[in-house]
Amino acid sequence: MPFAPLKNDTFLRACWRQATDHTPVWLMRQAGRYLPEYVATRAKAGSFMGLATNVDYATEVTLQPLARYPLDAAILFSDILTVPDAMGLGLSFEAGEGPRFARPVRDEAAISALAVPDMERLRYVFDAVASIRKALAGRVPLIGFSGSPWTLACYMVEGAGSSDYRLVKTLMYSRPDLMHRLLGVNADAVAAYLNAQIAAGAQAVMVFDSWGGVLADGAFQEFSLAYTARVLAQLRRDGADGQPVPRIVFTKGGGLWLQDMRALDCEVLGLDWTVNLARARALVGEGDGGKALQGNIDPNVLFAPPAQIETEVAKVLQSFGKPHTDTQTDGPTHIFNLGHGISQYTPPEHVAALVAAVHAQSRALRA
Amino acid sequence: MPFAPLKNDTFLRACWRQATDHTPVWLMRQAGRYLPEYVATRAKAGSFMGLATNVDYATEVTLQPLARYPLDAAILFSDILTVPDAMGLGLSFEAGEGPRFARPVRDEAAISALAVPDMERLRYVFDAVASIRKALAGRVPLIGFSGSPWTLACYMVEGAGSSDYRLVKTLMYSRPDLMHRLLGVNADAVAAYLNAQIAAGAQAVMVFDSWGGVLADGAFQEFSLAYTARVLAQLRRDGADGQPVPRIVFTKGGGLWLQDMRALDCEVLGLDWTVNLARARALVGEGDGGKALQGNIDPNVLFAPPAQIETEVAKVLQSFGKPHTDTQTDGPTHIFNLGHGISQYTPPEHVAALVAAVHAQSRALRA
Repeated sequence: MPFAPLKNDTFLRACWRQATDHTPVWLMRQAGRYLPEYVATRAKAGSFMGLATNVDYATEVTLQPLARYPLDAAILFSDILTVPDAMGLGLSFEAGEGPRFARPVRDEAAISALAVPDMERLRYVFDAVASIRKALAGRVPLIGFSGSPWTLACYMVEGAGSSDYRLVKTLMYSRPDLMHRLLGVNADAVAAYLNAQIAAGAQAVMVFDSWGGVLADGAFQEFSLAYTARVLAQLRRDGADGQPVPRIVFTKGGGLWLQDMRALDCEVLGLDWTVNLARARALVGEGDGGKALQGNIDPNVLFAPPAQIETEVAKVLQSFGKPHTDTQTDGPTHIFNLGHGISQYTPPEHVAALVAAVHAQSRALRA
Repeated sequence: MPFAPLKNDTFLRACWRQATDHTPVWLMRQAGRYLPEYVATRAKAGSFMGLATNVDYATEVTLQPLARYPLDAAILFSDILTVPDAMGLGLSFEAGEGPRFARPVRDEAAISALAVPDMERLRYVFDAVASIRKALAGRVPLIGFSGSPWTLACYMVEGAGSSDYRLVKTLMYSRPDLMHRLLGVNADAVAAYLNAQIAAGAQAVMVFDSWGGVLADGAFQEFSLAYTARVLAQLRRDGADGQPVPRIVFTKGGGLWLQDMRALDCEVLGLDWTVNLARARALVGEGDGGKALQGNIDPNVLFAPPAQIETEVAKVLQSFGKPHTDTQTDGPTHIFNLGHGISQYTPPEHVAALVAAVHAQSRALRA
């Protein structure tokens, strides 16, 4: 396949725990509303789904942050809820609100009727991946992604965001058999979805377990982690260009379960800002089977002036410590990111300060 | 002082890590909207603050759950935001919404103007404590409480609840000096407030750090934990009846920082449902200086049928394991509670099932 050779492989090398000369950085939701050019494209598209389902628009907004900042990776512009939408739940985004499903899944009949959707219904996503990969022209790698089975289940049952997850947890505690059936369908659908993204050109994939952290200890392992593992077990290992595709798992609020996550068949663990990177490195970042760590500055740091941003970047880099620098072997590596998605209110020039600080300071850290 | 002798001291004994014949249980927000009798009293009072500021109503609703369930402790009916209200911020509760401050604190001038309020403005709280203590007539101990300095600061700066804590974190990251000043005033105010509750008859006190868990590692220690410690350092040790008053610190989302909390000068740590009790016991529950542990079942368990509630209670009790039973020494103890406040949608009869299961199963666990 005619893929352009990769010019900046820093992110992929760090995923594979290989030495790099700086700490790669990208930002969750880096293509988004904090950028005026994104707002302009979205206005042309008319709606969020109008944007996500149009290959040209999706390509355009994915590349927008790269035009401003020397980020080390691009991430597909899409939404985590495309898969349940393809299952027929009817996704919409109301102005000023979050996502909403017209047909939430709340009883045995609705859950029994669920099935892995025909991936043709998600063709717009795979077309966007191929288009973005081409437009990137090898500049940086492209990350594909999906919501985790549990996180999708939260939205599918609640029908929208929730502050207490009462409906999905009532189902889970009352009828664990139904919840397991729902999660099994989700896991197989997510695996097929990520495999199709990989086939279309994604060079890494990320599973967003955005709501894993709302689960109780024990329930997390049974209802979230086990199904993330079921996704990972089904993923193809090589990309469209024959290169191996690293897999990232990010569980917001999952810091207490890092030791459980060490057993996941993935290369990278994403961390939110509550996690001490030095401790995480000691727990899961070192030795055989260790994971690369991705994260974890508080997105709200970006509201402070650049001098404070630089100070907070230094704290995060120093918390992880010096990544290994031996080019002959693998070892602990860090991928800089936010601990959660960037806020729509972020001043774009503050992002420039953050990216520059990560690059400059992380080079100095290795010296 | 003419306080009735305590008939059920199980909760206080467990706070002091003394052996008990069952695991004591109470529920955060046990006096609340899930009880029809509470709704009726609140309707008479006209508003939340009408309820909280009326000694007779506050006494009535505090005792309501005890009339239904054999709970092992009572907790003052009030709100964590009474202290900033007394500072002049203008607290109100809109119907169907959370609390709101008319005059949030967002700039240097507003923060400089803050001071520890005259405790006379909170007299209604201390009068309620005295009235409840009398009405309890020694049946179970009475817990007083306050929000933590950081949690109060969140509401004071945001002006209401928040999904991202953008305003308070912007202040924290941009002007840490101002945040420290705000937190210092809050800590001294909270200490004075809790001391006055103790003087009025509270037999234990609890600091609710409801929003400590939204902080980044490092920021939590600097902006929340340090000020909780400043509160604890100022608390009087003996109650109005000369008995020592145990102190409970609950940080929602604070499970990653348990080791830091071991150094707190308090007797009990409250835990949310994400924490593995066996691990928490090993980290902070054993040995000299160990803490009693309070928690931590997911409040959403109460939406499942009684049989499932009993199963989940068993998991929590077994996760902590057998409490120590040596009456000659102190050792690991567990106080059963929810991991957060009870939901307004909880079926009251499910609470009865939970309390009965805790008592019966925890007796069996010791046998």
